[in-house]
Amino acid sequence: MEPAVRGRRGSTELRPLLSGERGAQFGASASSPSALAVAAVLPAGGCGERMGVATPKQFCRVLGRPLISHTLQALERVCWIKDIVVVVTGENMETMKSIIQKYQHKGISLVEAGATRHRSIFNGLKALAGDQAYCRLSRPEVVIIHDAVRPFFEEDDLLKVVRAAREHGCSGYDLEFGTECLQLALKYCHANAKLVEGSPDLWKVTYKRDLYAAESIIKERISQKICIVMDMKEEKEHAGYLLETVLKNELNHVKVTSVVPCHDGSNIQHIILEQCYSFVCMNVMTTDFQNTQKLLGMLEESNLSVLYPVVVVSVHFLDFELGPLSQKMESLMWIRKFAVEVKKRNILLCGLIINYSQDEQKLQESLRQGAVIIAALIKERNSALLGQLLVA
Amino acid sequence: MEPAVRGRRGSTELRPLLSGERGAQFGASASSPSALAVAAVLPAGGCGERMGVATPKQFCRVLGRPLISHTLQALERVCWIKDIVVVVTGENMETMKSIIQKYQHKGISLVEAGATRHRSIFNGLKALAGDQAYCRLSRPEVVIIHDAVRPFFEEDDLLKVVRAAREHGCSGYDLEFGTECLQLALKYCHANAKLVEGSPDLWKVTYKRDLYAAESIIKERISQKICIVMDMKEEKEHAGYLLETVLKNELNHVKVTSVVPCHDGSNIQHIILEQCYSFVCMNVMTTDFQNTQKLLGMLEESNLSVLYPVVVVSVHFLDFELGPLSQKMESLMWIRKFAVEVKKRNILLCGLIINYSQDEQKLQESLRQGAVIIAALIKERNSALLGQLLVA
Repeated sequence: MEPAVRGRRGSTELRPLLSGERGAQFGASASSPSALAVAAVLPAGGCGERMGVATPKQFCRVLGRPLISHTLQALERVCWIKDIVVVVTGENMETMKSIIQKYQHKGISLVEAGATRHRSIFNGLKALAGDQAYCRLSRPEVVIIHDAVRPFFEEDDLLKVVRAAREHGCSGYDLEFGTECLQLALKYCHANAKLVEGSPDLWKVTYKRDLYAAESIIKERISQKICIVMDMKEEKEHAGYLLETVLKNELNHVKVTSVVPCHDGSNIQHIILEQCYSFVCMNVMTTDFQNTQKLLGMLEESNLSVLYPVVVVSVHFLDFELGPLSQKMESLMWIRKFAVEVKKRNILLCGLIINYSQDEQKLQESLRQGAVIIAALIKERNSALLGQLLVA
Repeated sequence: MEPAVRGRRGSTELRPLLSGERGAQFGASASSPSALAVAAVLPAGGCGERMGVATPKQFCRVLGRPLISHTLQALERVCWIKDIVVVVTGENMETMKSIIQKYQHKGISLVEAGATRHRSIFNGLKALAGDQAYCRLSRPEVVIIHDAVRPFFEEDDLLKVVRAAREHGCSGYDLEFGTECLQLALKYCHANAKLVEGSPDLWKVTYKRDLYAAESIIKERISQKICIVMDMKEEKEHAGYLLETVLKNELNHVKVTSVVPCHDGSNIQHIILEQCYSFVCMNVMTTDFQNTQKLLGMLEESNLSVLYPVVVVSVHFLDFELGPLSQKMESLMWIRKFAVEVKKRNILLCGLIINYSQDEQKLQESLRQGAVIIAALIKERNSALLGQLLVA
C-alpha cells in the first residue's frame, strides 16, 4: 500500500468523484467551486534483485509489454489524476521514453532517480512542487506515490488514499503504523501523510512467481469478453448460432456476444471501442475469408492491439463427409501468410475448421471441441500458434 | 515456515543425511548406531475462504491435479520422512482417499480434523504418539508440521527444521518469534518447538493468483528437459539433428537431449525413469507414425503420466514443394484418433509438419518456427490442442 502525500497548499472540500477527462477538476460540481488537483509519482528506479532475473522487474514483460506500462495504463484509467511522474535511473531513461511512445501513454513526465528510493520519491515530488522555473507541471494538492510494480488496483483504492490525504493532518498515531515513505514525506517535504489500507488486489510484483501470476490475471481479464462475428449469409439457427450456444455453455464466466456486421461495420467498431480483445469470426457457407478479412481490416485501423494482443479465430464449417478434409483445407492454408501479416499489428489469427455434420451427435461433439479450442486460443494468446489451421 | 516438534523421546545425535529408501533410518551409519525417526503432519482442513473459490485451496487443481497431491509428492521425495499424516475434515475424507489412490501416494495416514487448525494439528500429533492401541504408526522423534498448501520447498528447508528440532530445547526466546503452532506444540504436546527461517521458495498458496503462479512454476519445472527421439532410418546431419540444433538455440534454458532408440528400447525407458515429461519424436523418411507409436507404447506402460501430463510432439518432415501439402496431411490426420486414445493415460499428442525444403533459408525458417511451436506445446501442456496437426 502506498501513502498519499498532501501538499503544502491546503485543500478545501472533497466531493464524490465525477467521471470525466484526464485533468478534469477533481470533485468539481456546480455547488462546489473547490477542486482537488491530484498527481501520481511512480518510483521505478529499482534493480529487481529479488526477482532473480537480469531485467529490473518494472521492465519485465507481461504479455509482451513491460510491467510499468501496465501500471501506467491502470493509472491513466483514473480520470482525476492530472499528472504522472515516473522516476527512473539515467540508464533506463531512453527505455522508459520508448515505452511511453510505443504504448501511447499520455501525460507522463520523466524524472531521474536518486541514489535511494527515498531520494527518488523526493525528486518526483520536487518536479511537482512547481518551484522550478522549467517545470511545466502544475502544483498538485494531493500526490499519490505508487509503486511501478503494482499494476493491479481499483480506482476505489486510490480514492481512499486521496480521501485520507484530505482528512488527515500529520499525526504521530499514523506514523506508528507507517512505512519508510511516510517518514520521508513528513521529514523532507513538509507534507502530511497517512497509511491507508488497500485491497488484496493491490499486491506488488516482487518475485518471478508474481510475474507468472500477473500474466495469468491479465490474460484472464482480457478474455472475459468474446465477440462472435456472424456470417451475413447465415440464417437463424445455423452453425454460428449453434456455436454461440455451445461457447456460452463451455465458458460460463465469459460474456459471449454475437453480432451480424451492418453495412458500414459501425456495430463492430462499437465493440472494438468497448475493448473486446477476443473475436470468433464465422465464415459459414464458403471456404474463403471474406468475413474475417473485413474484421481484420477494422482491427488494423483501430488502436485496440497497441496494449494487448487481439485474438481472432476464423471459423469455417465444412461437412467432413463430403469429400476428404485435406482438399478443403487447401484453400484455407493461406491463412498462414495472412496471419504473419496481421501479427505485425499484434493480432493473433488462427483458423478453425468445424465438422458441420448432418449427424446431430457428431455436430454437437465437433462444436463442443471447437469451443474448447477457441477457449484455449483466447486464454493462452500464444503467438506460436498463429496461422495454424486447427480441426474440431 | 513450519515449526518442527520434538517428541518426548529425546534423540541422540544427528548425522549428515544419507540418501535411501523411505523409512530408512535417519542418519544411520556404521559409526553411529543412532537413528532419528521423522514424520510429517499436514493440516489440510482449511476451507479456502481467502481464495475466493468454492473448493478448499488444498483441493484446487494445479495442472489437473489437486494442490495437496503436489505437496505430498514433494514430501515423498524426502527419503528420511517415515510417515505422513494428513489431517482432513470428515466431509473431505473420501476425496482425500481417492486422491491418494489416483496419484499413488504411499505411506500416508488420514486423521480427522478438529474444529480449529490447532485441534487438527493436535489430532495429527496424537496419531503419531503411538499411545493408542489401534495405531499402526511408530512413534517418531521429530515431527514436521507442514502446510498442505506449500508445495514448493527444498529438502534443505526440512533438514534445517529437523536440525533445529535436535539442537533446541524449549526456550522463551524462540517463542517470542514463534507462531500459533509453536505455542500449541509447547502447551499441549509436552514437546519442544522452534521457529526456523525458510527459503523464499517455501511460499504458501493463499490467493487465486498463487494458484496461477504455482501452475506456471510447475509447468516450467517439468519442461526443463526435452528428449528428441530420432528416427532410426535417419542419417547424421539429417533433419532430426538440424532440429535438435535449432531447439537448443531457441530454448537455451532447457536441457535438450537426443536418443536413437536401441532395439529393446531400454535407452528410452531409462529417460522415462529419469522423469522427462516432454518428447519430440522424429518420423523423417515416412509419413507414418512408426517411431511415435513405439514411444507412446513405452509411455503407456510406464507410470510417468500419473503425476503430470506428458507431451509428445510427433514431427514429420515433408518437402512442401513436392505436391500439395494437403495430400500429405491426409495420411497424418489419423493422429486425431490416436491422440484421443492416449489422452486417457494423460499423454498429450500433437503432430507437427516441418517443411524439409531444398532451399536452405526456407528450411532454417521452418525449423525455427517448428522449434517455437514445440516450445509452446511443451510449455502450455494444453489438452485443447491434442490431436492437432500443426504446420511450420
